[in-house]
Amino acid sequence: MNTVTLQEIANTLGISVSTASKALKDYPDVSKKTKARVKELAKTLNYKPNPFAVNLRTKQSKTIGVIIPELVHHFFSSVIKGIINQAEKKGYLVITLQSNESYTLEKKQIQLLLDKNVDGILISLANDTAVFDHIKHVIEKKTPLVMFDKIAKVVSCSKIIINDRAAAYNATKYLIDTGCKRIAHFRGPLLPQNSIDRFLGYKKALDDFNIEYDPSLVYICNDMTFEEGEIFAEKLINDRKNVDGIFINTDLVAIGAITKFNALGVKIPEDISIIGFSNWFMSSAITPTLTTVDQPGYKMGKIAFKRLYKELNHIKNKKEFSPKIIELDTSLIVRESTKT
Amino acid sequence: MNTVTLQEIANTLGISVSTASKALKDYPDVSKKTKARVKELAKTLNYKPNPFAVNLRTKQSKTIGVIIPELVHHFFSSVIKGIINQAEKKGYLVITLQSNESYTLEKKQIQLLLDKNVDGILISLANDTAVFDHIKHVIEKKTPLVMFDKIAKVVSCSKIIINDRAAAYNATKYLIDTGCKRIAHFRGPLLPQNSIDRFLGYKKALDDFNIEYDPSLVYICNDMTFEEGEIFAEKLINDRKNVDGIFINTDLVAIGAITKFNALGVKIPEDISIIGFSNWFMSSAITPTLTTVDQPGYKMGKIAFKRLYKELNHIKNKKEFSPKIIELDTSLIVRESTKT
Repeated sequence: MNTVTLQEIANTLGISVSTASKALKDYPDVSKKTKARVKELAKTLNYKPNPFAVNLRTKQSKTIGVIIPELVHHFFSSVIKGIINQAEKKGYLVITLQSNESYTLEKKQIQLLLDKNVDGILISLANDTAVFDHIKHVIEKKTPLVMFDKIAKVVSCSKIIINDRAAAYNATKYLIDTGCKRIAHFRGPLLPQNSIDRFLGYKKALDDFNIEYDPSLVYICNDMTFEEGEIFAEKLINDRKNVDGIFINTDLVAIGAITKFNALGVKIPEDISIIGFSNWFMSSAITPTLTTVDQPGYKMGKIAFKRLYKELNHIKNKKEFSPKIIELDTSLIVRESTKT
Repeated sequence: MNTVTLQEIANTLGISVSTASKALKDYPDVSKKTKARVKELAKTLNYKPNPFAVNLRTKQSKTIGVIIPELVHHFFSSVIKGIINQAEKKGYLVITLQSNESYTLEKKQIQLLLDKNVDGILISLANDTAVFDHIKHVIEKKTPLVMFDKIAKVVSCSKIIINDRAAAYNATKYLIDTGCKRIAHFRGPLLPQNSIDRFLGYKKALDDFNIEYDPSLVYICNDMTFEEGEIFAEKLINDRKNVDGIFINTDLVAIGAITKFNALGVKIPEDISIIGFSNWFMSSAITPTLTTVDQPGYKMGKIAFKRLYKELNHIKNKKEFSPKIIELDTSLIVRESTKT
């Protein structure tokens, strides 16, 4: 069947192909009159967009966007490295944006990326993000989006995660197995799913091993900084909590706590055992070295891109697909900050 | 004066504006015949490209490319953060690429960015880069390019640097001032300018204070890793070099050395004083805390983008400009790894 092309429509009306294309897509920079003329003619001539041309345009963007909460961060920079390396193998370039844990900024950045016509988006949500209209908007626009690490359970899209609850459970269980009887938890902020799950894993382990849960032993680190580790470590001692173990939401806070305990003369692990989370590089350089949960950042980045790439191809080939949740393994790295 | 537009040329020849535009620019995907027709008509009608249209197109890219050697790196991730934050303020998006210290990859990435029509490029060179044809190619194409941190002296473009030689001189002088008499240097690879300059600063300080320069006390860290720090620290002891101070090219290597000295029972600073370079976060968390040169990564990123932005505007406004070298201040952060 010989079908009419956009070029022929444009020629007939004496306008450019790009104007004709924009008119069909209702772009604001084309006049109402032109839009009406183009649409009418397209209908009369039974115009169908050339799938090959669409394909070509899809191929040409070859750019994806990544939004992360913070770049100067061992875990996230590892994820980005994994994404960039994998994307480059497939000829994709990566635009990186940093939300600074702010929902407002994250929402703006999503729009920036859509305006830029990126082929797809990878995102790890800001701590601040409690509504997901901006994310749902991307999904409605059929732009593939994959979440990693800090995800939203209520949004239907592919997600690359670890089992935070199981990892936290195992870490807390290890403290119990090595003799700790009164275990504190330095947790993350209230909103992010991973911080909720790590807290629930901690609580479940206490329950399972008949250790009473004491809410006064849970400290909330809103910024998850080195300084918060120092502050809560000192507070724990000043408040005479008689704690003999702490499971800490992230290594950075744990390193702050160790630094303060060292300064105060609290012996680790003799007086207090500590387990962190993430296996940052420095956890093996501090004295004592830190027992921690290894979280595979580089691998997570690679797999997040691979999943996005698969979805891009499904869309290109007009193939149906369902969102997929991929869970990566973690492991407990036992070092000097826990008893044997 | 009423001048002919590209649209009119396209309409007259019954081709699209984009084909007419490509024909004038000698794109390979336009036939010779069409090129000849367009060029002839353009000449006849005395066609001049609309500067506003060019301007609009220039404005629309609003993307810059950044190439760094390594992303999982406190200094470089800080630089990138500075670049991204500053770029976003001006409505620019940032494509980040990582050269893995490879010239071949860096060259390929430069081409990728040019193909993507980025407005400008920021680059910190790979250790491996000894020829600069790829960089010169960018400059010849009049795409603004600014180098930061790891630069090439022989290339004429704007550069954001620190005075590595002076910083290294001051660090070495501090070791001498606090009583060190036999000072080793763990240096970086042979090619990068900053590693050369830090070595020269070290050597100059020895000369100025009448300490004999002993080449056997200079260890080359080709990968600048934690492991190299451990290896050379152990070698220094095994080789019985009787060293009482070390100036180390980067904190990561210094942290490796401290970790090994701690394990071997070598007392810091009583037996050996150590000074690092960069002021990575972890240098204040290790025991003993590390005396180091503070290198302003975030600021360097901000200023690199600001300079690029200035050059983009100069080009847009057809204003002449000369490359500028901006030197940022460093300072010595004195901590526990040196004597007082």
